[in-house]
Order: sequence, then structure tokens, then C-alpha cells
Amino acid sequence: MIALPEGFSAAGIACGLKASGKLDLGILASDRPAAAAGVFTTNRYAAAPIALGRKIVKRGRARAIVVNSGNANACTGPDGLADSRAMTRKAASALGLDPTDVIVSSTGVIGQRMDIPTIATGIDMAAAALRADGTAFSEAIMTTDTRPKTARARIGDARVVGFAKGAGMMAPEMATMLCYVLTDAHITQPALQRCLDAVVGATFNSLDLDACMSTNDTVIALANGAAGGTAIDGGEREREFTAALRDVCASLAHQIADDGEGMTKLVAIRVRSARDDREARVAAGRVAGSVLLRCALNGADPYWGRVLAALGTAPFRFDPSKVDVWMGGEKLCEGGSFGPGDASKARAALQQREVEIVIDMHRGDGESTVLTNDLSVEYVRFNTEYTT
Amino acid sequence: MIALPEGFSAAGIACGLKASGKLDLGILASDRPAAAAGVFTTNRYAAAPIALGRKIVKRGRARAIVVNSGNANACTGPDGLADSRAMTRKAASALGLDPTDVIVSSTGVIGQRMDIPTIATGIDMAAAALRADGTAFSEAIMTTDTRPKTARARIGDARVVGFAKGAGMMAPEMATMLCYVLTDAHITQPALQRCLDAVVGATFNSLDLDACMSTNDTVIALANGAAGGTAIDGGEREREFTAALRDVCASLAHQIADDGEGMTKLVAIRVRSARDDREARVAAGRVAGSVLLRCALNGADPYWGRVLAALGTAPFRFDPSKVDVWMGGEKLCEGGSFGPGDASKARAALQQREVEIVIDMHRGDGESTVLTNDLSVEYVRFNTEYTT
Repeated sequence: MIALPEGFSAAGIACGLKASGKLDLGILASDRPAAAAGVFTTNRYAAAPIALGRKIVKRGRARAIVVNSGNANACTGPDGLADSRAMTRKAASALGLDPTDVIVSSTGVIGQRMDIPTIATGIDMAAAALRADGTAFSEAIMTTDTRPKTARARIGDARVVGFAKGAGMMAPEMATMLCYVLTDAHITQPALQRCLDAVVGATFNSLDLDACMSTNDTVIALANGAAGGTAIDGGEREREFTAALRDVCASLAHQIADDGEGMTKLVAIRVRSARDDREARVAAGRVAGSVLLRCALNGADPYWGRVLAALGTAPFRFDPSKVDVWMGGEKLCEGGSFGPGDASKARAALQQREVEIVIDMHRGDGESTVLTNDLSVEYVRFNTEYTT
Repeated sequence: MIALPEGFSAAGIACGLKASGKLDLGILASDRPAAAAGVFTTNRYAAAPIALGRKIVKRGRARAIVVNSGNANACTGPDGLADSRAMTRKAASALGLDPTDVIVSSTGVIGQRMDIPTIATGIDMAAAALRADGTAFSEAIMTTDTRPKTARARIGDARVVGFAKGAGMMAPEMATMLCYVLTDAHITQPALQRCLDAVVGATFNSLDLDACMSTNDTVIALANGAAGGTAIDGGEREREFTAALRDVCASLAHQIADDGEGMTKLVAIRVRSARDDREARVAAGRVAGSVLLRCALNGADPYWGRVLAALGTAPFRFDPSKVDVWMGGEKLCEGGSFGPGDASKARAALQQREVEIVIDMHRGDGESTVLTNDLSVEYVRFNTEYTT
């Protein structure tokens, strides 16, 4: 049982989009109008539903979100756009809403036409199954995830509940992920968008599991105000709401990183004392993007040379002889060369499921942490045949 | 027998740097002063010998190149620099040259002190073994290469002979590679550097095997003028020399791509009709850098959606609905969506060892081809434990 904020209902059903027979279509609905905020992929091949979702978020209001898994409806041209519109209209009609109140999302294989008749049947089934429990929805949005991902927070009388799917194609800006956050807090739409923008950078955009940016990444927040009170809009109450939203998004991001395709390790790449946070983020991303380092981590090999070799490609000037690197708590590199740390202790620490690499650049107070995974034989096997 | 240009000699011996007992130290020498040109890694963690090599190339003259494999002497701080200087002095003394005439190179593991006594013994052995055959040298510079890489061209009476090592950590600017080109052509040093700069972009810098830039990449050309005649310096003769040098470097680059770690396929990513060549190069690099696409290619899966998803992250604006993609000769994507090509024919074509992906952007006459490899289970296995 995943309790939802006041005024929200959810459903998840299997309509046959997944050959496995698993849940493949879900709906989130609010019994009253809700402020809608969103952040979407920056990929130029943004999928068809992204184009429609951007318009609705711009308008700032929505009542329902419909999500199918199994087909991403990406790189499908004008036909794909027509399919997403048909899916929107069908959901509006099944839920008794205006099509401008319905956000659609799709995730799965790129470059295949949607099976709209099947989806229409699924929408009817899901609309009939709506209730105050998010469990089935959390399963219906999964693709290669091995488990559903949800998180919650409280802020006064209001609740914040988030759902996400992750797994493959994880990179900034935005991993392949869908995330939906529902709240009954009373908050203005501009404040909701500000809060979302404020937390996405340090949560979802700090995931870099395989350096592959997706076509379908979506984060949507709906706030229906059912908890009552005066609307949050700036000041201390907005900061509190931002903190609650950050907790939810950070938990979901961590769950996504902990369930990457073929992963055996969750690796935090923490860059500190960079000139500023942005530089730290770029540096951490370079290191997280090194397939050679990720292979070494798979084998618990404390090969700090691969950390520096990746850092050395960062597109800004820095003094390479000022950099220290810790792997598994051991300072293996000091001043860009051998450090005093114990490599066998580092190797033992790198056997753990959660490992940390700390890079100190000694040039400012910028800091950033990127989450990535090791690169395993299983990841390659898995992605060798995905479309078939 | 690998014949060398007039006035050059070569050697390769085993001095114990490699535990396997394979050849691990080589020398190339000219019996007279030679013009020296070079291109080096842009990695900020450029290895110690790179710092010394840059100075000699700036001076523009050299007589010998000494290369060890097994240890990269990278990220080794001031000690590493002292070690490279000691290696230089030892080679100068063994060859009866001035230290300013000797270029040293190192390749292998990052972050370990060099074993200078062993290298000194090796230099004496190699100096005594110099002869007019490059075979042993071509083997002594190998690390994870499965075979030596050499190429040759003629220009009038002069010869051009190139040696390279490649294998892992292959990315622009410069793959992890060492390349040495010897010629007895009479050419001025500035002309030699111009020719080298002109060919590196479309040859070695078009290798992007695993998106990991190395700390030790080096391309050196020595021209000793033993073939006589007036010096090449501009005009038609420089164009002819550039063409010969391009043939040699293109062949070596192809051989490197055909021998990547764990590779089963040599993949040419050809972007055409980009706005300009630079844009085409960036676009091709994005596609070559997609681990998901490289996994799909390992399984001969014609998943064109991964080509677009990677292209869609390129840092310039373009119309995504104008792009066509061919995989294995089949036009699987037209106008950013499904194309008329036959996916099963593409799948059959992708079973070949050499495969081509063509991306037409329909916006200019820029063109670039990047060579990459598929990503295999063997690559991951290989790189899971490299230092130990």
C-alpha cells in the first residue's frame, strides 16, 4: 500500500504492451485542478509526449498523468505525435477531463509505432481501477528496473509522494527516467516550478550511470492544494517545501542509481574544492563517464590513474599537481602523483556495494557529487540485444 | 624484415619490464641529425616523457627515440620527470649522442615508478642490437595490442615508414597511442610539422574507440634527408609529402581500430552534410561515444534509435527531422523517424567485421568519419583487472 496525498488516485494495469504480461500502463489523477511543473530531457530527439507535456507545463495546470511502458514513442515523427495526441484524447474521455488537463508519458524502445488500440483498452482498464494506492502505478512504469521506486515526505499537514523509473540510458541532463511527484500542498504554480528547478540539479541531473542521455526523461510535479491553507509562494515556506521535495527526489535518484542495468556497485564521485560548483560538476561527470574506470571499479581495482586520466580531459585549466584522490577512503593520489594510502585497504573497500571516490582540486570551494555505476559484463550482455 | 629509410636503424629487446618476458624496450636512431616534428596528448595529466618530448620537438631536431612499454610514467610527479631525464641521459650515453637529441616515450600502467636500472640495462642491450630492420622495434612498443602495426609509403626516391601501438584508451584528441614515422626525405622542420598537423586530424584524431583519452599519446616524425635533393618546403612537393604521410598515418589508424581491446567490429561512423567538417566531427564523436550503441553493435542489433539518441546530445542546434541514418547500407531512419530500409538485411550486414553507420544531416557540406569499436564482454573483462 502506497498512500497518496489527499485528492489523488492511481492505477496500474497490464494491457499487453509488454510481451511478459507485466503491468504496462498507469494513471495518476487528481480529483481537482492541480498546479503542474515539469523538467524535460534536453535531447534534440525528445520523444513525442515530451512535446505535448512541455505545452501543458507551460500552461501550468493538469489533472492526470498517463504513462505507458514498453514503447518510448521516440523518433516516430508526425505519426508519433498523432499517437500521443490520440492517447491524450482517449485518457481525457475515459477520465471525463479536458485533453489540456492530461499529461502523457511513454518509455521503452525507441523508433517503433505505438499500438494505440491496445493503449486505449488499457486506459479504460486503468481508469476503472483508480484508487488511493500508488503500488500498481509504481510497477506499471518500470522497464528494465528490477524494483519499483517511491519516496515520501511530509511538510506540515501536506504530503509529498514521488514515483520514478530508471535503469538504463542514464546521463545528464536528466537520466532516462520518468518521475512523478504528487503533493496536496497548496503552492502556486510558479513556486512549484522554482522548487522543482532548484532540486533537479543535485538529484536527477547528478545521475550519470552510463553517459547516455535519453529521449524521454521527464519530471512532473502536481500540487492540488487539498491540504488547504494559504498558498506557498516564496519565503521560508517555499524553502521548507523545496527541502521536502529535495528529500523525495534525492531518495528516488539514489534508488535509480542503486538499480542500474547490470550494476554491482553504486559509485559516488565527489569533487570538492573546485573553483565553483559548476566546475566540480563537469569534473565529476568526466570521471563518471570513463568506461575504463567503471570497468576497474567492477573488479574493485583501485586504479587511481584512470581517475586522473579522465579528470585530465576536463575542458578547463587547472593545476594537475594539486589534485588528491581518495578511493574507498584511502588517499591513493596526492598532488597528482602517488599518495600515502594503502592500496590493499582501498581494494577491500571497493568490494562494497556503495563506494566513494573523492577528488580534491585545492582551488576553491566548489563541490559536486555524481552518482554512477560500475560497468559489468552483464550491462554489455543486457544491452547487446534490447530491441529484439 | 621491415626495411627502414636510408640512415635509420632500429632495435627491440626484452629487459624484464614486462613480466611476460616479451619485448619491452625499443630504439629508433638516425645516423645523422634529423628534423623532428610531433603532436602530443592534450590530457592535463600528460606523462613525464611528454613534457620532455615537447621541448625537443620545439627545438626541432633529434637523432633517436627510445620507447619502453609496461610502464607509462604518468601521474608520477617530479620523480617521474627525473626518471624520464635519467632514461634520456642513459640513452644519449649509450648511443654517443647529446641528451637534447633523444626523445623518450613510455606506455603501460599509470601511476607506478619506473624501474630505471632495468631500463638502463635494456638501453645498452638495444643500442648494441641496432640494425636496418624495424621488426623487433614494432613488437617492443606493444602493450595490449595483439599484433604490431607498421605502414610505408614512397615519395620519389624517399621512403616513409611508420610504427604504431594502440589498443586501449582510444579517444581524441589522440588515442592512447604511440606513433613514430621515419623518413629519409629532405624536408624542412617547419614543413614536416605542417604536414604532420595536416594529417593527424583525419587519421589518429578520428579514432574514438572507448572515449578515454590517454596521458601518453605521441606522434613523432623524424626526417633525416638521407635521400638527398633540395629540401621540401611548401608547394606541390609538400602536398605530395603530406599525401604520403597521410597514407601511412591512415593505415596505422585503421590498424589500431582493427585491434581495439575486446573488439569484434571496426565501426566507421560517417557524418555527412553537416554544416562544416568540425560539426560533423563533433556529431560523429557523440555517436561513437555511446556505450549503448556500441553494445547493440556487438550484438549486430540495428538499433538506429540509439544513433539518434546520441546525436541528439550534440552541442549545436540542428533540425532533428532532417536526419537520415543508414546502418549496414540500409536506410533505417529517414527524416528522424522510421526509414524504408530492411532491418533484417541491416542485421546481416552488421554481422561483418567492418561496418558503417552513415548519418546525413542535410544542412551543409561538412563531413567526418570516426572509427570506433563495438563494446564487448571481453573489453569489460579485460579492463576489470589491468593494474594487477
